[in-house]
Amino acid sequence: MSSLQTKLYSLEFTKALPLKSGAHFGPYTLKVETYGILNAKKSNAVLICHALNASHHVAGVNDSGQTGWWDNMVGPGKPVDTNHFFVIGINNLGSCFGSTGPMSPDPATGIPYGANFPILTVEDWVLSQSYVADYFGVQKFAAVMGGSLGGMQAIAWGMMFPERVGHCIVIASSANLSAQNIAFNEIARNAIMSDPDFHQGNFYAHAVVPKSGLRVARMIGHITYLSNDDMAEKFGRVLRRPTGAKQDYQFSFDTEFEVESYLRYQGDKFADYFDANTYLLITRALDYFDPAMDFKNDLSKAFAHMQANFLVISFSTDWRFAPERSREIVKALLDNKHRVAYAEIDAPHGHDAFLLDDARYHALIQSYFVKMQGECN
Amino acid sequence: MSSLQTKLYSLEFTKALPLKSGAHFGPYTLKVETYGILNAKKSNAVLICHALNASHHVAGVNDSGQTGWWDNMVGPGKPVDTNHFFVIGINNLGSCFGSTGPMSPDPATGIPYGANFPILTVEDWVLSQSYVADYFGVQKFAAVMGGSLGGMQAIAWGMMFPERVGHCIVIASSANLSAQNIAFNEIARNAIMSDPDFHQGNFYAHAVVPKSGLRVARMIGHITYLSNDDMAEKFGRVLRRPTGAKQDYQFSFDTEFEVESYLRYQGDKFADYFDANTYLLITRALDYFDPAMDFKNDLSKAFAHMQANFLVISFSTDWRFAPERSREIVKALLDNKHRVAYAEIDAPHGHDAFLLDDARYHALIQSYFVKMQGECN
Repeated sequence: MSSLQTKLYSLEFTKALPLKSGAHFGPYTLKVETYGILNAKKSNAVLICHALNASHHVAGVNDSGQTGWWDNMVGPGKPVDTNHFFVIGINNLGSCFGSTGPMSPDPATGIPYGANFPILTVEDWVLSQSYVADYFGVQKFAAVMGGSLGGMQAIAWGMMFPERVGHCIVIASSANLSAQNIAFNEIARNAIMSDPDFHQGNFYAHAVVPKSGLRVARMIGHITYLSNDDMAEKFGRVLRRPTGAKQDYQFSFDTEFEVESYLRYQGDKFADYFDANTYLLITRALDYFDPAMDFKNDLSKAFAHMQANFLVISFSTDWRFAPERSREIVKALLDNKHRVAYAEIDAPHGHDAFLLDDARYHALIQSYFVKMQGECN
Repeated sequence: MSSLQTKLYSLEFTKALPLKSGAHFGPYTLKVETYGILNAKKSNAVLICHALNASHHVAGVNDSGQTGWWDNMVGPGKPVDTNHFFVIGINNLGSCFGSTGPMSPDPATGIPYGANFPILTVEDWVLSQSYVADYFGVQKFAAVMGGSLGGMQAIAWGMMFPERVGHCIVIASSANLSAQNIAFNEIARNAIMSDPDFHQGNFYAHAVVPKSGLRVARMIGHITYLSNDDMAEKFGRVLRRPTGAKQDYQFSFDTEFEVESYLRYQGDKFADYFDANTYLLITRALDYFDPAMDFKNDLSKAFAHMQANFLVISFSTDWRFAPERSREIVKALLDNKHRVAYAEIDAPHGHDAFLLDDARYHALIQSYFVKMQGECN
């Protein structure tokens, strides 16, 4: 097993990106990290698309000592084996980890875009990602792969660039958000936007951050990433008893249960590093994704021109992106006689499962990529 | 069918209430509404316990034109038939509809209790309710009945006053909250407490209300009261299109989907009438309720001395108080050979179902109360 070969890029794009909203945006920078080596035929590239709070830093340990968000999946000898595949991670436009986003200075004014940053869609991201592929000379990805919102990008790749994707790997995702999911996003956005430190999105100028809103947003997210059973097992009704406490309950609104402590910790941590405008923007892109919309809500029609093979994976206890939502994707693909493999992994960890190290899940991805190697030679 | 006979009381209690926390609280007022006529033997009284945001006003239309929160359940000829039963509704201590609560003036200072109001438990409410029973000369309730948090009060009645309850009717409830439920409550409290207008609970003095926090709290609540399917059916991905809009999406963070509009409306409405401190207090009482805690988490041991008959009802799509949580109650009762009837109603409306007019549900309650009539004569 060789060591991980990593390269970091800041790619500048001067041509404005035409957005689904009708606006144009540019110039812009995309932060990109690659792993492994692109072969001579440029046929072994795999694009990994990230979800809400991740970035281009998919695997390995970076200069800040941070391990990549999908390091258990991508690397030498791992399911997506960088000894055989050239893996590209891109920080999506509008995110806050090096690509141009709401906190970047608007060249027209010299101050951060803030509320003036355009509202983006999954399709806008995919278009910008295609320019990254062009930069590397990758005409066709061996695979485009992602979980959750990343899975939506994989679907959009299959639709927008049917000839440029060999395999779409769609994990713990859906072809659109349910009303319940939109509702969770709306509440999170509401918490951020009603924080007085939000200043209509222009908080940078006030040298503050809407921390309370971000905390609440993240806490809501965390509940929906875990399964009910998982939370019961992890925390149950276990109390955090101060040393020497005489009674079981402290009768206060401070942290009393372990689960409260966990959520507050996660909320605080998130508020320290994530941009509030990026949170709004990415949840809105999630809400808006709905490829069937232009086809009178007929997903089968929307998928008619796909050429990629699909691997669709769901997790039994994922209630945010439930298996039935994955089966809708599978059905629409089968209606078109597209090739699709589907696995529903029995896993206790809810939506979070797509990021975790599950033996059956990883074995499945590994064998899928091993088969794919033959196609790249 | 005769008309509904309603009486309204403000009962003053001068003796301090000993609380589970060890504190004592008093004097206090309880707002009470009664329906129907107490018979000579005082054997036909039914106590209806309310959940988070309801009150003593259970049935009929009050002077403000408001219909009672369980008007479809209680009244002449209704499932809990006030032609035969004397029904008592009590606004719980700490609530904000006429009983003493955080917004009431502390006689010691003349200003609202605010953050100084004590933290209450389900057991404290039940004890205070027993004094209301004493006031009416009711030695034994024909039934104590409630849904959700109201069901927890019915359980506590059976445990604390086994000789004073004929039937405990526990609907859409559980013997304690799951970690996930505590988490939802914690986030709602966090949203309220981090609102700058909360002023550590003493917002009355500042003539403001933590509206943003209350809005978010209520929005979270609403998601958990409805089932995923119910939301899908009610709202789906339907858009609110401004008149003359040219495209489907408006590309903004304003209300875009019907479900967002619904949640914002519900949140605003709630923030206009509900007290923020009451919200904290009642959700904490929910968190704290755990009758098995003093019995090494053995619910069967906790239920050993119950004497009441039980009717336990759950709803198939209620994910906040799922049927499995009701079955835990039933099992613990059966372990003690207590008499219990259990029904799991197949209903699409999630936790909200206990408040809605469902034919099978109401027929079940009706026939249960008809049988009960014989015991009251």
